Amino acid sequence: MSELASRARKLDAEDELAHKRAEFLLDGDVYLDGNSLGALPASVPGRLDDVVRREWGELRIRSWGESGWWTAPERIGDRIAPLVGAAPGQIVVGDSTSVNVFKALVAAVRMSAGASAERDEILVDATTFPTDGYIAESAARMTGCRLRPVTPAEVPAALSDRTTAVLLNHVDYRTGRLHDLPSLTAAVHAAGAIAVWDLCHSAGALPVGLDEHGVDLAVGCTYKYLNGGPGSPAYLYVRRDLQDRFDSPLPGWNSHAEPFGMRPAYEPAPGALRGRVGTPDILSMLALESALEVWEGVTIDMVRTKSLALTDFFLECVAEYVPEGRVESLTPLRHEERGSQVSLRCEDAETVMNRLIAQGVTGDFRHPDTLRFGFTPLYVTYTDAERAARVLGELLS
Amino acid sequence: MSELASRARKLDAEDELAHKRAEFLLDGDVYLDGNSLGALPASVPGRLDDVVRREWGELRIRSWGESGWWTAPERIGDRIAPLVGAAPGQIVVGDSTSVNVFKALVAAVRMSAGASAERDEILVDATTFPTDGYIAESAARMTGCRLRPVTPAEVPAALSDRTTAVLLNHVDYRTGRLHDLPSLTAAVHAAGAIAVWDLCHSAGALPVGLDEHGVDLAVGCTYKYLNGGPGSPAYLYVRRDLQDRFDSPLPGWNSHAEPFGMRPAYEPAPGALRGRVGTPDILSMLALESALEVWEGVTIDMVRTKSLALTDFFLECVAEYVPEGRVESLTPLRHEERGSQVSLRCEDAETVMNRLIAQGVTGDFRHPDTLRFGFTPLYVTYTDAERAARVLGELLS
Repeated sequence: MSELASRARKLDAEDELAHKRAEFLLDGDVYLDGNSLGALPASVPGRLDDVVRREWGELRIRSWGESGWWTAPERIGDRIAPLVGAAPGQIVVGDSTSVNVFKALVAAVRMSAGASAERDEILVDATTFPTDGYIAESAARMTGCRLRPVTPAEVPAALSDRTTAVLLNHVDYRTGRLHDLPSLTAAVHAAGAIAVWDLCHSAGALPVGLDEHGVDLAVGCTYKYLNGGPGSPAYLYVRRDLQDRFDSPLPGWNSHAEPFGMRPAYEPAPGALRGRVGTPDILSMLALESALEVWEGVTIDMVRTKSLALTDFFLECVAEYVPEGRVESLTPLRHEERGSQVSLRCEDAETVMNRLIAQGVTGDFRHPDTLRFGFTPLYVTYTDAERAARVLGELLS
Repeated sequence: MSELASRARKLDAEDELAHKRAEFLLDGDVYLDGNSLGALPASVPGRLDDVVRREWGELRIRSWGESGWWTAPERIGDRIAPLVGAAPGQIVVGDSTSVNVFKALVAAVRMSAGASAERDEILVDATTFPTDGYIAESAARMTGCRLRPVTPAEVPAALSDRTTAVLLNHVDYRTGRLHDLPSLTAAVHAAGAIAVWDLCHSAGALPVGLDEHGVDLAVGCTYKYLNGGPGSPAYLYVRRDLQDRFDSPLPGWNSHAEPFGMRPAYEPAPGALRGRVGTPDILSMLALESALEVWEGVTIDMVRTKSLALTDFFLECVAEYVPEGRVESLTPLRHEERGSQVSLRCEDAETVMNRLIAQGVTGDFRHPDTLRFGFTPLYVTYTDAERAARVLGELLS
């Protein structure tokens, strides 16, 4: 056994999160794609079967009340809240991330316009996952704003008294770079604008601190580090003191103050409920709720500590096993700038990733030349990291 | 046994859809709330367990391709298409009804504005399920239009060369009244406007004929007569020749011509795919796909024939069993004006419905004074109808 392999064993033996792996249904392969689709928590199949057979099949319509279906969006929001540093009552679950970006950005412009009609420019992360940019373009078009794409580093200089809202990603989906949420949020606020953060690649992987850093609005998906299942519903955070001013472009009946009053005039519900839209997608939502049970007894600081140790160790193994010059890390070495993934630029990346997968090491390929490896500390081991780097090294030798 | 009870037995024995009831998981109760939440098809629990354990748990990320997850929205749309009289390639499944109403109405205004900038009035069904009205108000506000609520009967007179789009319900959720889709659509077109139909209470219960009647855009939910499960995803129909002009207010990455190109500039996909937004909600969507298997060998005309016979028979039983003057039907007697439910106005309706439910007859209460009974021909029997009326009669005697 190589030195790195035996060190991996030792690190696994000392890992305070090691016991969490048993709460997932996994096989012998190395799964480093939990930043795209989290692995299946062991509690989910049984819970979902109960939701389907008993709650839907037997109680049927009564489950909206008796099984707590109606209140699931805010109840599950409160379950996600501690993972992103939010007090209860500020998050609702539902719809896709794209739809929530639209709600958040339009509402941000409306909040800001309330303060000053001269603000008509939305800044958007030019390196963002594309959907955020597309939706931001639509939000700008529909609110009479101009959209200006800038890199996160350029944001401070781009802010002005024309800026209405700024949409940023906490972690870049391609490079795994972690952006400085506290200082960027402070800069946005100093310019009098609203800060909207996309947490898709950070929630469940590292501390976010929404309340602590005064973030205004945030969105995120739940199928990556939160393991909610394919296409599980996203969430929307609206800071408590902004909720009365949250004016949704999608005021569906679920956000009405009295949803079963069936009133022709819309009157928004108080609090985070205002972010709801239509009938919540119960099967996916309750699968997510069950998946969140794996966070019992885990703090996000424990996760962050292991995440950095895992990615450090993986980079060390890559340096050892992969021939010089065959890959180049796009992910920052500095911990303050690193999310929970390692992205390696590599020639013929798509072919290389397909071969890795065939050999039991799953990451993913991102156009045009990037191998992405996501490290989900609740179930990825140091032994996984060593094996992934070793197989990659063999393929590239 | 009463004459009506024995007639019910005979009607059940002759029912060409009677064998379909075995394809649902039902108990001995009478379930007349399938117009709110359809009963559980027997195929769903096993299929969903396979989706969770094998497709998510074992294949994980590979299932987006290998298990056909990525193409589910359009594949399932094509499965719904024959039930609403649409040729393939015009329906995508995803998001809630409310979100789809927003997409459809904004896109309708944009199509219409392309024809004439003078059109700035949206007509909306004043008796609609409230969410359609709330969302229509938002769509009007965000497109610079004026919203004018009118009853469906007032639509022809209200149409003018200012009308851009008209949002109508095919069946009224409270009264069960069926509106005349062919003639209203023709009137909207004669005025040069776009017709948007909400099919929540008609799809799966009666013929719609979207293609035949030239409907422009339509939306509907799948958890009522389509039995998709609680909060299962809704769908959007865009008539083929309008698809190139469908300009979505929610242009998420799933509607991009090359979604995995991760391009910063948005370029819409061709066809119905343009109505997609974010990552599809796979668990709920595949439960719906499985639920749609019950339509094998069933035509919507068979369903309509039984639906009318069931509601006729129920009304006859009510007239026989319920003391004179205790209830009044809000549902039209004429077949051409009747959906697949019977709504009875009744004093203390909420209390009466709770007692009915306690006695094994489930319908629902709608504020302020309405008992609603939905008749889903795939699993409701004539015996159910007779028993429901009999228990109601006993309660009101």
